[in-house]
Amino acid sequence: MTGGASSSCGACKFLRRKCTTECVFTPYFCYSQGAQHFSAVHKVFGASNVSKLLMKIPMQNRSEAAISISYEALARMQDPIYGCVAQILALQQQVSQISLP
Amino acid sequence: MTGGASSSCGACKFLRRKCTTECVFTPYFCYSQGAQHFSAVHKVFGASNVSKLLMKIPMQNRSEAAISISYEALARMQDPIYGCVAQILALQQQVSQISLP
Repeated sequence: MTGGASSSCGACKFLRRKCTTECVFTPYFCYSQGAQHFSAVHKVFGASNVSKLLMKIPMQNRSEAAISISYEALARMQDPIYGCVAQILALQQQVSQISLP
Repeated sequence: MTGGASSSCGACKFLRRKCTTECVFTPYFCYSQGAQHFSAVHKVFGASNVSKLLMKIPMQNRSEAAISISYEALARMQDPIYGCVAQILALQQQVSQISLP
């Protein structure tokens, strides 16, 4: 957001850098678990890839994108083999079971 | 797998490098669309991150991991805002609708 380390966003806290007004991550990782979630995002996607991805998305959609990216990253940390695809497979199975006559 | 460009895996074809026996991607991107899928994987996750991720997974689970990673990458290319999380949300909605009394 601005100046000192205490007001750094979760991404800058994790990257141990000064958060500036140009920081693309600030609006999306400024919450208590921001640094923890960004740590997963960084490990799975890489800060640079996520920064590029966010910059290509219209401003009004970046928050949703950051949430879905964090979600995928945390799922991949928890389940390195299937990530959030495990949830898709489980839900597909649930739908097919419920839909059975 | 071995030697020349013609036998390179999809990852090495995309990265324009010689495929060696040490290539971690070979078993998982050796199919007709391997290079195209790896292009998405590289753009979304980065080759280095995926290589690290695969190396940490037991050999017998790497194929499944590569499939789920490719799936996530292709979904993110198609829907930069929600990626495959869009499918989770749609399936959750479907389950809640079907489950309604």
